[in-house]
Amino acid sequence: MNDCIFCKIIRGEIPCVKVYEDDKVFAFEDIHPISDGHTLIIPKNHFENIWEIEEDDLLAIHRASQKLCRAMTNALDVSGIAVLQLNGKSVNQMVLHYHLHLIPKMSDAPEIPLTNWELIEGDMDKIKQIGEKIAAAVE
Amino acid sequence: MNDCIFCKIIRGEIPCVKVYEDDKVFAFEDIHPISDGHTLIIPKNHFENIWEIEEDDLLAIHRASQKLCRAMTNALDVSGIAVLQLNGKSVNQMVLHYHLHLIPKMSDAPEIPLTNWELIEGDMDKIKQIGEKIAAAVE
Repeated sequence: MNDCIFCKIIRGEIPCVKVYEDDKVFAFEDIHPISDGHTLIIPKNHFENIWEIEEDDLLAIHRASQKLCRAMTNALDVSGIAVLQLNGKSVNQMVLHYHLHLIPKMSDAPEIPLTNWELIEGDMDKIKQIGEKIAAAVE
Repeated sequence: MNDCIFCKIIRGEIPCVKVYEDDKVFAFEDIHPISDGHTLIIPKNHFENIWEIEEDDLLAIHRASQKLCRAMTNALDVSGIAVLQLNGKSVNQMVLHYHLHLIPKMSDAPEIPLTNWELIEGDMDKIKQIGEKIAAAVE
């Protein structure tokens, strides 16, 4: 798409620190890193989110994610990696071109805030009701 | 694995609210939900994390994730979905069996805390150095 910032990065119209590319995907360093080595993987074809992306492109992203997680661990002193992908402005998807975040934690780095949440026991009746609705809607 | 809680769920030794199953993957509701509809997708074969999982199992997880995101949106008043997968105790992976979190946000629900972080401009020299190391380590 002409006005999409990630499409511009793929076309080379905006500079980036590229770390990987194949026929389907493009990966580069986030310039607002949550942690050192914060990397984004995007499909070369423009899709907004997980609802839109073609299956072949989605699988190419995740093949590349495994390759890059292994590369990060080989290259850096990584003790863990959070993989995050946001769909929709209501969950703070900032750029409306599908992107997968790889957020490594270095051994000596502080905790990554987004990986920590309080475990609160759910209401089992509500969980069952919602689960049944989701299960019934699988196509 | 005998003592893995997720392997026990797959074998039916621990009850769960199942929402989907195919030959490779199993999906069920998280009983400590961050949001209504919080769902986990796991491979039937035991792998600890993204470094270990076989490619076929990884791709099956993500095929199922798309199916389930669509089902959630069809079944519920979902305005966004965060997809999260943690690797390593240092990023708070609680169960050491690969699992993908699908965390939907309902239209009328409060913001999901883990989807929000402050954008802080990175140090471009450092980003370039790290990016070059990752790129050089891709196999």
